[in-house]
Amino acid sequence: MAKVGIMETAIRDGHQSLLATRMRTEDMIPVLELMDSIGYHSIECWGGATFDTCLRFLKEDPWERLREIKKRLKKTPTQMLLRGQNAVGYRHYADDVIYEFCDRAVQNGMDIFRIFDALNDTRNLETAFRAVKKAGGHVQGAICYTTSPVHTVDSFAKLADEMIEMGADSIAIKDMAGLLSPMMAKALVERIRQKHPDILIQMHCHDTSGFSEMAYLMGVQAGANVIDCAISPLAGGTSQPATETLVAALAEDPEHATGLDMEKLRQLADYFRGVRKKYWKFESGLLGVDAGVISHQVPGGMISNLVGQLREQGAEHKLPEVLEENARVRADLGYPPLVTPSSQIVGTQAVLNVLTGKRYATVTRETRNLAKGMYGRTTVPIAPEILKQILGDEQPIDHRPADDLEPEMEKAKAEIADLAESVEDVLSYVMFPQVAREFFQWRKEGGGPERELVAAVVGAMTISEKKQQAAA
Amino acid sequence: MAKVGIMETAIRDGHQSLLATRMRTEDMIPVLELMDSIGYHSIECWGGATFDTCLRFLKEDPWERLREIKKRLKKTPTQMLLRGQNAVGYRHYADDVIYEFCDRAVQNGMDIFRIFDALNDTRNLETAFRAVKKAGGHVQGAICYTTSPVHTVDSFAKLADEMIEMGADSIAIKDMAGLLSPMMAKALVERIRQKHPDILIQMHCHDTSGFSEMAYLMGVQAGANVIDCAISPLAGGTSQPATETLVAALAEDPEHATGLDMEKLRQLADYFRGVRKKYWKFESGLLGVDAGVISHQVPGGMISNLVGQLREQGAEHKLPEVLEENARVRADLGYPPLVTPSSQIVGTQAVLNVLTGKRYATVTRETRNLAKGMYGRTTVPIAPEILKQILGDEQPIDHRPADDLEPEMEKAKAEIADLAESVEDVLSYVMFPQVAREFFQWRKEGGGPERELVAAVVGAMTISEKKQQAAA
Ligand SMILES: [Co+2]
Ligand SMILES: [Co+2]
Repeated sequence: MAKVGIMETAIRDGHQSLLATRMRTEDMIPVLELMDSIGYHSIECWGGATFDTCLRFLKEDPWERLREIKKRLKKTPTQMLLRGQNAVGYRHYADDVIYEFCDRAVQNGMDIFRIFDALNDTRNLETAFRAVKKAGGHVQGAICYTTSPVHTVDSFAKLADEMIEMGADSIAIKDMAGLLSPMMAKALVERIRQKHPDILIQMHCHDTSGFSEMAYLMGVQAGANVIDCAISPLAGGTSQPATETLVAALAEDPEHATGLDMEKLRQLADYFRGVRKKYWKFESGLLGVDAGVISHQVPGGMISNLVGQLREQGAEHKLPEVLEENARVRADLGYPPLVTPSSQIVGTQAVLNVLTGKRYATVTRETRNLAKGMYGRTTVPIAPEILKQILGDEQPIDHRPADDLEPEMEKAKAEIADLAESVEDVLSYVMFPQVAREFFQWRKEGGGPERELVAAVVGAMTISEKKQQAAA
Repeated sequence: MAKVGIMETAIRDGHQSLLATRMRTEDMIPVLELMDSIGYHSIECWGGATFDTCLRFLKEDPWERLREIKKRLKKTPTQMLLRGQNAVGYRHYADDVIYEFCDRAVQNGMDIFRIFDALNDTRNLETAFRAVKKAGGHVQGAICYTTSPVHTVDSFAKLADEMIEMGADSIAIKDMAGLLSPMMAKALVERIRQKHPDILIQMHCHDTSGFSEMAYLMGVQAGANVIDCAISPLAGGTSQPATETLVAALAEDPEHATGLDMEKLRQLADYFRGVRKKYWKFESGLLGVDAGVISHQVPGGMISNLVGQLREQGAEHKLPEVLEENARVRADLGYPPLVTPSSQIVGTQAVLNVLTGKRYATVTRETRNLAKGMYGRTTVPIAPEILKQILGDEQPIDHRPADDLEPEMEKAKAEIADLAESVEDVLSYVMFPQVAREFFQWRKEGGGPERELVAAVVGAMTISEKKQQAAA
């Protein structure tokens, strides 16, 4: 494994990070053959928020997307992001759902499953690991990286040990907030590599803080095998660093060169430059380095969120106080990684604590569930006095949250009945009941042009008109 | 020298790279005290294109700007970019101009002079080195980094040797096009450090290709002492990488930490975020990594230029041919670094060669002057057959171009007469005769609001209106 591999994220995390996950399958299809010819380690193309977005906004069948992609990637493995017991949804599902989902994913063309839990609770990974194994897929165990006084090289390395013990075929370091510094990247990869000389280590960094290129470089030098990059028009900012940058930077280092062809990458960039313009309506407008992430680990998106909540109460001036309280609440709640949903839970509770003037006087349902263990185990246990404040006399659960769930597939089949045309449809329905039902109904009525598509087309036409005017 | 120093480029290269050099002194003054308190190694604040822009667009006296800045930077050294024998203009000036300029610059508050020549011809640096020494300034010799078959670690290291021999107090590696890869940064800094254990090595990279953070990290690990960064709102893309990114990344490495305070940097970023919005009219619209630089070393700006030239002739479809010819012409002309003015000379000649269908059938005045040695020595000599094609029977000069120049100061003083109120004014006039004359005239007539200022104010108001609408 002398060469470094690249996973291309353009058609999953790239547009999820920069274009609100709105890229349509029709904009992927024309370029898949080219992508397949480049020699990527894998192409991330499914999971994460794409499943939801397909059904909710694009009126696309996510399973159909997977089949269309797989048909055209003849030699490059497909890769997806699976949220452990949450699969591609936002709550814990029963084990029968997870088994069925992973089986159907493999049958429809998925090769590599990156599996994570937002709290790094490995109990929430168990079923997904087993299900992917059973279906014949590759299990990649993903560590959610974050920073806090209780997160250390040791604690993350132990997670990797546990996942490998549980049967992970490879390990991913998933740095969703862009917090992985170059020194930490080096230390962490070195430690995992030391104990597991042959395991494939893949790094997934976002460029939010500007660390990602440096983290990759140090990680690769310490023994990481694969790095996740996005072709330049879908790179940078809250997305991954640019494929071209890393390919060129590593090309001069024979031990770590990727061997990818810059000319083909140029063609791919040309293509996606056009695609990005088409979706200009979904640009977040965030540019360059988000220094807030570095100084108080709160990404710009979350700050806007907090400001929005405060503004509704005419209390925007309390932002500095809320940011401090945010850090305290995170500590109180056992230092969850800053990722959906924990970042929102912590942030909203911090706003409440400040506005009510009494900490935990009002507690959200989500805070209560987190404290009760309904999301899983927090990084460190929540202190008894905090638990008392949040839960009163109620006791937290001490087992895997999904242990309390009855099987769901049969009930769902009965509910959705004839509207579902396949097991895949039933799974879509389990994940997003209302949204999937509306989609099936729309499909049954013969489909038709749809709002988002119209918006995208209008957007593209506006751009092209502007260009013609500029050229004239 | 365990700690790494940062030069902040916000008020020179930052806005020169991102906002067409349009930042006004009034937008620097309110924040200089804060900048002075941060502990930067130096603050770049003068030279480069700022001198020209002050007079031409902002109707500001560049010397007055320097004095206003120096008054407020009580402990942080000022730094400027000086184009060798071109000073802050675009042609070679006589030695008396260079001596007078450097003397006045020191008298008005300049501490560190980064001196470069676009062709890396050290003969073009001699006078500036001597002049700065004589005036009591710090001489920083700058190597213009580029890539070509004849540019090697050896060739650059030799340049550094020569400059140190010539009296350079420090060395800068100036990577104006963002081409310095991490491996090359390591190799080059190591080599210079090996031979010169005590010389201060400063790195100046642009983030155009996405290499800069990695280049800094490897350079610092190899022994570089100072890196040039821009506070995040003026960082990234064609500017330097963000100060916050490098400060945070190095903070975890005790040997290379900068010791700068993230909270102060946050305040500085807040300030410049507002300033950048004010100048939105001057945004280039270029976003993220420019992959063209990596694959054919032609930055996006130059490609637009070539496309523009081709479009005028209805020959846009010949761009691929022109890009190939561009590389050939650069080789023909002895591999000049890709920087103003050589990049334009090479590009225009390439367009002509393609459009006329016969190489060097038509030759621009600038190509002829380059071949004649009027800009200085090219990296490698131009082959006799190419020289013949360009110059016919004319012979190139074999001495320093400025040797042919008569002293200019006295003549200029006489020409501009009463309109000049100081030696500084005469120097402005020598650099930009027509522009300076117009400025002096405007000033004599009592000044008054000026087009660019009006544009900036209107821009700021538009932004604030948009915000109010969005908030409503
Ligand atoms: Co991601
Ligand atoms: Co520069």
